[in-house]
Amino acid sequence: MFRSLCALLVASSTILSVQQPVRRSVSLIVTGGTVVTMDGGRRVLRPGAVAIDGRDIVGVDTADAIAQRFTSTDTIDAAGHVVMPGLVNTHTHAPMVLYRGLADDLALMDWLQKYIFPAEAKTVSPEFVRAGTRLAALEMIQSGTTAYADMYYFEEEIARATKEAGIRGVLGQTIIQFPVPDAKTPAEGIARAVAFIRQWGGDELIVPAIAPHSMYTLEASTLKEIRAVATRERAPVIIHLAETRDEVKVARDKYKATPTQFLESIGFWGDRTVAAHGVHLTPADIGILARRRVGVSHNPESNMKLASGTSPVPSMQKAGVVVGLGTDGAASNNDLDMFEAMRQAAFLHKLTSNDPSALPARTALAMATIDGARALGMEREIGSLEPGKRADLLIVSMRTARQTPLYDPLSHLVYVTRGDDVRTVVVNGKIVMRDRRLLTLDESAVIDEARKWADTVRSAVQ
Amino acid sequence: MFRSLCALLVASSTILSVQQPVRRSVSLIVTGGTVVTMDGGRRVLRPGAVAIDGRDIVGVDTADAIAQRFTSTDTIDAAGHVVMPGLVNTHTHAPMVLYRGLADDLALMDWLQKYIFPAEAKTVSPEFVRAGTRLAALEMIQSGTTAYADMYYFEEEIARATKEAGIRGVLGQTIIQFPVPDAKTPAEGIARAVAFIRQWGGDELIVPAIAPHSMYTLEASTLKEIRAVATRERAPVIIHLAETRDEVKVARDKYKATPTQFLESIGFWGDRTVAAHGVHLTPADIGILARRRVGVSHNPESNMKLASGTSPVPSMQKAGVVVGLGTDGAASNNDLDMFEAMRQAAFLHKLTSNDPSALPARTALAMATIDGARALGMEREIGSLEPGKRADLLIVSMRTARQTPLYDPLSHLVYVTRGDDVRTVVVNGKIVMRDRRLLTLDESAVIDEARKWADTVRSAVQ
Repeated sequence: MFRSLCALLVASSTILSVQQPVRRSVSLIVTGGTVVTMDGGRRVLRPGAVAIDGRDIVGVDTADAIAQRFTSTDTIDAAGHVVMPGLVNTHTHAPMVLYRGLADDLALMDWLQKYIFPAEAKTVSPEFVRAGTRLAALEMIQSGTTAYADMYYFEEEIARATKEAGIRGVLGQTIIQFPVPDAKTPAEGIARAVAFIRQWGGDELIVPAIAPHSMYTLEASTLKEIRAVATRERAPVIIHLAETRDEVKVARDKYKATPTQFLESIGFWGDRTVAAHGVHLTPADIGILARRRVGVSHNPESNMKLASGTSPVPSMQKAGVVVGLGTDGAASNNDLDMFEAMRQAAFLHKLTSNDPSALPARTALAMATIDGARALGMEREIGSLEPGKRADLLIVSMRTARQTPLYDPLSHLVYVTRGDDVRTVVVNGKIVMRDRRLLTLDESAVIDEARKWADTVRSAVQ
Repeated sequence: MFRSLCALLVASSTILSVQQPVRRSVSLIVTGGTVVTMDGGRRVLRPGAVAIDGRDIVGVDTADAIAQRFTSTDTIDAAGHVVMPGLVNTHTHAPMVLYRGLADDLALMDWLQKYIFPAEAKTVSPEFVRAGTRLAALEMIQSGTTAYADMYYFEEEIARATKEAGIRGVLGQTIIQFPVPDAKTPAEGIARAVAFIRQWGGDELIVPAIAPHSMYTLEASTLKEIRAVATRERAPVIIHLAETRDEVKVARDKYKATPTQFLESIGFWGDRTVAAHGVHLTPADIGILARRRVGVSHNPESNMKLASGTSPVPSMQKAGVVVGLGTDGAASNNDLDMFEAMRQAAFLHKLTSNDPSALPARTALAMATIDGARALGMEREIGSLEPGKRADLLIVSMRTARQTPLYDPLSHLVYVTRGDDVRTVVVNGKIVMRDRRLLTLDESAVIDEARKWADTVRSAVQ
């Protein structure tokens, strides 16, 4: 009897092993949700699943297909939710969250000269930048941003805080002609940038970059030197471009050119360059940006709130310019929520094109994910859910009254979803927020610290 | 010993009664928050308090002053939060939430003819309207709208569902020239409207109204008759006005006038009239609207998403036209979140005025509260926190990372607050949501019911 039972068990286990091939054990499986891949075929899998091993995505398929190929001790059930690539914010100044709402509804020069410049002169320090970056990272994680491009001072502090928060940053040390909190001269700024790039090169999460502030705040010779340094150090470049009518006027008065043309004339444009804003561009400027493969960061909320103007996004896209989305610093827009940026981009370009089919939800979503990655030169690593890429993904709730009913998840992601609907965030294969619980940051400590800094800012502008 | 103790007690109670006058016992006190009153002086009290008795506000003052005058068995601690008037949505089509996201990014006529009209023809029924209104009311309560103006079919069902949800509605029975789900002819529609107005007149929460759809979907004779009925029945009138370029063309071709001028020429304009959209208006049109004291409902999200155009809001305000804010139906914008409408209004008019000081946060907030109430002819009852008005108020969290730090609560309400930040909602003195818990609606039942209707809608447009 005992022998025959054993024989039966052996036989049945043999049958099982024939039916179920050995499944690969991976670190995390997210399954059961509607998977919006943003891959080349723009596949949407329902229900789909993503298998993650270590830092990488190893499988993206239907839930059944993933279950047949992979197994994991950590599985997240995403039923009723959308699983999508992490959002890529292509332009911000992270620590400026500490100036959020300090002074709104003012003319730009009043805002800068009466509030932002005095506040920056009196408050920006390594400690301030660290506290601000922690608050920004908290807000970014809570609203689904997994990678961001930054331009500010003491960028090495921003790098450290970003890495501790567990998100990805393309972080540009700012160079500007006049004295700033971390450099008395542009030469000192460039030296800081070189040291920063060498210190952080090769990091898994941080891509160090150099950030000449703009063509109107830097001499031509400094801009040329920065390009040479970027080429030598193989670092990305981030610059503000044609944000305001004033900038266009400076370029015309000083160089008899548009800002884009002037930068072309001095050989500034090159690989892995992000131009932020690109509001006031001529067709010839768009031609230059396309030819030089400059990534443009479109910041619709900031451009509207500061009355900067409307960037010709559909024309750029038609001409082959890669356009990502950004929030700008939260002192101007006033938040870091990329879902708002998507909705705003769609609304703005429908209105200004007189065409409700302009910049559809699908395009806004691409701009916030794969096109943002392309603008930063990172499309091989991030921006879509594909095997071989880094595992940067979100689980987004679709269950609120505001999201009911659900006919088209892509429409809902752009037109009714908020950052607060993000439930879970994975960056580089690591869960940084799980069901709204932060795993890399102490939420209340970060908020308390920011409130203390706000007192310092208040005194500075009194 | 005993006598002397009694004497002491009597003496001390006498002292107490001298120090503390008898406090009025009221039904609810909300205290400790920053109270944004939106009263004539635009007082902001920190910390402030609001005393409510029955349906009415009986005290609005500093927290200390209210504590000295009032006592209640129900007190809500609003420390760290903003207390503000409930938001007034001056234009929507509540049941259309059931078509939310059904078809976006289409040219207007494709959207209407391929999706919305077929869906309406096959699905609109009393049951559909009830389910849709319940979902809309849920979303409105969750995002802080306490009063709304509506225009749809089977408005008596909308009235019932709105009253059950415990919010306030100015509800307009729609009249249109062609057959619609609740009326084969305009005459039948008018008869329905009269019955509706007589049935609901005098209700505490519901103001029945008549809603001629627009000048381009109704004959002049019908429009005149509707005005006569409204005057006779003392009912508010809600009409779409100059929403699209097409409407302007119809008016020009048919009447050689603008829509506003045409309606003026037939004597349509009168008291308690709300014109929704008002996008394409001439200075002469604005003069007519000011003179006739027509309230205009500005719907920035809908106008942007459908590429209708930009309403001349600052010009109207300068001319003395009262402009409230609306979301429009969620099939077009795609939600009922008035915080989004405020932000969008501020962003849009800064951009189109080339002026970052245009339509400041304070103006957007007024449009969503007291000006909305004025547009609906209800400024004596709602729109601000003042003794004698109905107790319609919100407690809004200011504690998220996104809202940190907090320099100016009015800026934060417009530029970084979402409907989801609303914690508690009081309408007519009754708490309808307390710390996100719904007290008048069963959230999951409402959502489940809406999902079932979505299946019907899907079949209808296949």
